[in-house]
Amino acid sequence: MCRWLSYIGDPVYLDSLVFEPKHSLVAQSLHAEEAKTPTNGDGFGIGWYGDRHTPGLYREILPAWNDANLQSLAHNIESGLFFAHVRASTGTGTSRSNCHPFAYDKYLFMHNGQIGDYKLVRRELEALIDDKYYCSRQGTTDSELIFYLMLSFGLELDAHRAIRKAIETVEAAMRRHDIKAAFRFTACLSDGESLCAVRYASDDKPPSLYYRKRGNQVIVVSEPLDAESASWIALDRNQSLHVSRDLTISKDMMLEACA
Amino acid sequence: MCRWLSYIGDPVYLDSLVFEPKHSLVAQSLHAEEAKTPTNGDGFGIGWYGDRHTPGLYREILPAWNDANLQSLAHNIESGLFFAHVRASTGTGTSRSNCHPFAYDKYLFMHNGQIGDYKLVRRELEALIDDKYYCSRQGTTDSELIFYLMLSFGLELDAHRAIRKAIETVEAAMRRHDIKAAFRFTACLSDGESLCAVRYASDDKPPSLYYRKRGNQVIVVSEPLDAESASWIALDRNQSLHVSRDLTISKDMMLEACA
Amino acid sequence: MCRWLSYIGDPVYLDSLVFEPKHSLVAQSLHAEEAKTPTNGDGFGIGWYGDRHTPGLYREILPAWNDANLQSLAHNIESGLFFAHVRASTGTGTSRSNCHPFAYDKYLFMHNGQIGDYKLVRRELEALIDDKYYCSRQGTTDSELIFYLMLSFGLELDAHRAIRKAIETVEAAMRRHDIKAAFRFTACLSDGESLCAVRYASDDKPPSLYYRKRGNQVIVVSEPLDAESASWIALDRNQSLHVSRDLTISKDMMLEACA
Amino acid sequence: MCRWLSYIGDPVYLDSLVFEPKHSLVAQSLHAEEAKTPTNGDGFGIGWYGDRHTPGLYREILPAWNDANLQSLAHNIESGLFFAHVRASTGTGTSRSNCHPFAYDKYLFMHNGQIGDYKLVRRELEALIDDKYYCSRQGTTDSELIFYLMLSFGLELDAHRAIRKAIETVEAAMRRHDIKAAFRFTACLSDGESLCAVRYASDDKPPSLYYRKRGNQVIVVSEPLDAESASWIALDRNQSLHVSRDLTISKDMMLEACA
Repeated sequence: MCRWLSYIGDPVYLDSLVFEPKHSLVAQSLHAEEAKTPTNGDGFGIGWYGDRHTPGLYREILPAWNDANLQSLAHNIESGLFFAHVRASTGTGTSRSNCHPFAYDKYLFMHNGQIGDYKLVRRELEALIDDKYYCSRQGTTDSELIFYLMLSFGLELDAHRAIRKAIETVEAAMRRHDIKAAFRFTACLSDGESLCAVRYASDDKPPSLYYRKRGNQVIVVSEPLDAESASWIALDRNQSLHVSRDLTISKDMMLEACA
Repeated sequence: MCRWLSYIGDPVYLDSLVFEPKHSLVAQSLHAEEAKTPTNGDGFGIGWYGDRHTPGLYREILPAWNDANLQSLAHNIESGLFFAHVRASTGTGTSRSNCHPFAYDKYLFMHNGQIGDYKLVRRELEALIDDKYYCSRQGTTDSELIFYLMLSFGLELDAHRAIRKAIETVEAAMRRHDIKAAFRFTACLSDGESLCAVRYASDDKPPSLYYRKRGNQVIVVSEPLDAESASWIALDRNQSLHVSRDLTISKDMMLEACA
Repeated sequence: MCRWLSYIGDPVYLDSLVFEPKHSLVAQSLHAEEAKTPTNGDGFGIGWYGDRHTPGLYREILPAWNDANLQSLAHNIESGLFFAHVRASTGTGTSRSNCHPFAYDKYLFMHNGQIGDYKLVRRELEALIDDKYYCSRQGTTDSELIFYLMLSFGLELDAHRAIRKAIETVEAAMRRHDIKAAFRFTACLSDGESLCAVRYASDDKPPSLYYRKRGNQVIVVSEPLDAESASWIALDRNQSLHVSRDLTISKDMMLEACA
Repeated sequence: MCRWLSYIGDPVYLDSLVFEPKHSLVAQSLHAEEAKTPTNGDGFGIGWYGDRHTPGLYREILPAWNDANLQSLAHNIESGLFFAHVRASTGTGTSRSNCHPFAYDKYLFMHNGQIGDYKLVRRELEALIDDKYYCSRQGTTDSELIFYLMLSFGLELDAHRAIRKAIETVEAAMRRHDIKAAFRFTACLSDGESLCAVRYASDDKPPSLYYRKRGNQVIVVSEPLDAESASWIALDRNQSLHVSRDLTISKDMMLEACA
């Protein structure tokens, strides 16, 4: 179980969200409150959009609280759309390739959750990655695999449909192997224009997900960055959130048919 | 505040103490119970004596729970006298050079605690390191500094006296700078023959220290490795422990005059 | 293209071969002479057999010439059968999981060479890994893939046959994709009892491979450790070398039918 | 001996100089041509000025050619004044703290060269660092020490004078210890407004230094980035170069009195 944050809105320096709030993402990496695992010290990553075609990406296997590079980068990089993630491994190794966010072309993806009994379905799901993307995958996590399934299922044409199909495909594979453990999927995706977040689980314990809009800033997070609890809106189970460049927010029960 | 373990006795594989006990040192790195900081994820190290003149040393900046190399090394290295340490930084950077144990010639040293307001006395104390040792120091921690003070004060001739003089010297410098913060020093030292542990603090909160002798095995630890609480003996404040190669144990209030 | 060394014989400290010779493996990592790439700075690894069921393994992404841990480990670890490898990446990322040697159960494997146009055949070859081994694979290199193909092809029953079948399988896949680039495979394998080295290429440029027996010591290397050129015996193209625990050496043209 | 590059002018993406030229700094890290050591694989760093008070800093102990983070950062960070450095250690350890550039407040500094027999004068020179800066020093290199000497000698008031005094101080200490080895100092310094480069040596072998002005771009480098040799101007021995924000270039023999 991991912790993550995404932001869309007027450009801000990354440290204003990643480091400065009382319960910032880096503070959460040491003491998460709503996570199954309080310590998220198995690597971290940031991804941000600027003027280039592809987003910037910085991932490291150290704990986020311990990396002087991250402090300097977050202090000096300004972005109007970025992701940050701190990782608690669910079994796969600690390497940069296994750290979130994952990037492909203009897309960023990050995830909190897991495919239950992943080893039983890994091979079968990997076989569904389209040839076009197969050799771009760099790590061994279930999270990156889901990202490549979404790409293979037409993410570039219809994100909504690709996410749904990825969830259905994972669950179908789990059923074939009679897996009782849950599939938990609280994730965030962007193409550099808008962002899409999903809070899904095959059981009734989807990892928490909140957002807040204030002025020209929308923050989407695993858990609130401060104690102003009234200001944070929790997503319901199986709800998805879409925030466009002009900060129009829409919510959807897109995934209810999956379970 | 850190957690550490030392062992002297019949040769054992390191993982039998570092990984296998329910509350092993690596388990403590994620969830320490008697420490001020529950997470000790700012690097770790092992040092062990074999047949060479100098001890082996493996230090890494990753959290101990996350390092496949440590697992393999601890599973394959057998020793009759070794140290293991997990670090929670008290302000100095995370680099291998700042990880314990520190080694010089045949000596190993590791420490839990800190010099209060270290920055105020750092320069003055560094100036007391003997020329012979000055360029061997690799890092910037107060812990390594104390080790080099002990070496400079004749550790090779009279360990007892060198430790006492190092403590007195640190406290005198702190007094000169009118430092109110405490000096805490729960530390372990070995020359490859015997081991010496100290539980000292300038205030009444010395970090915890326990030991247990069973058969031909003596373990000295920051906190017990298992719940058999009756089997672990706590050292008193300002008490030192000496364990010789034949496992003769002696305790001493060697430091009472320092405070 | 990488450089490697393996040793079987009376126990020696690893540094006597890895660091001390004039043209030691670590010296080769900075200035290889018979390799296509003179610098092998993309990670390294050592694997050694002791009294445990599985070999010890230490792999790191730093250049070998730069790692204080490697120096200390090689100085303090003694073994009668060990592998050491310095890596120059042929395209896959630098992570510990991609460093040689690779270990599975009691087996160690390391490789110099590559599958030409690996991306074209990667998927097809990965699909041939037996379910039993599929999730044990940790990295993304062609080298580790070949190791898992050998395991899948019965390495535990008949190493000779499994190696041959792996080579034939790789070449058949390359032919199906009409790949003109060469398959180069100068590799070493051990089960903890004996070691087997192979110098193979689909073209006439197999990476170099030498061995030397002196007293109770057999060394197998990518290039000689010293200038006593008469003492090193080069393997022929497509020749394999087998050295048993009692240091009986046999050579074979086992692979001639493959090409 | 290291390789470095600095840039001042219209904002450019860092990778246009660090990666893209045929003989880019990263290409030089594998195959330097004018350096004593062809491989500069002992860490690297970039420092850049943007809109913050302090420059951004990213330093890592991997070889520069091997770091995916560096590629992404250099592709996405744009700056009108930046430094990049690839390191070949002259004896001190490989840690991020020992990688260039070094930063203090608004200043960046990087260096190619060394203080001959540094261990003999290290203590004496460290004693000259002003109290104000003493605890900001993080590493153990001679390069960082010289930077802190310059700060202590009034860099913020008169850079020219501080550099000269630092050189004189180092040489005086070397003379007192009767050191015959050379002091070599090809270095670059910036306060975020202008940049100052120096090519100095106590003997007649100062490390190479070139610059080129084209349009609104000035590049200062250890060795040319391309084969257009006529376009690169070499600095003379003991010459300094100053480039202001408006790209006015002045050269000076400021150091001739030092030798």
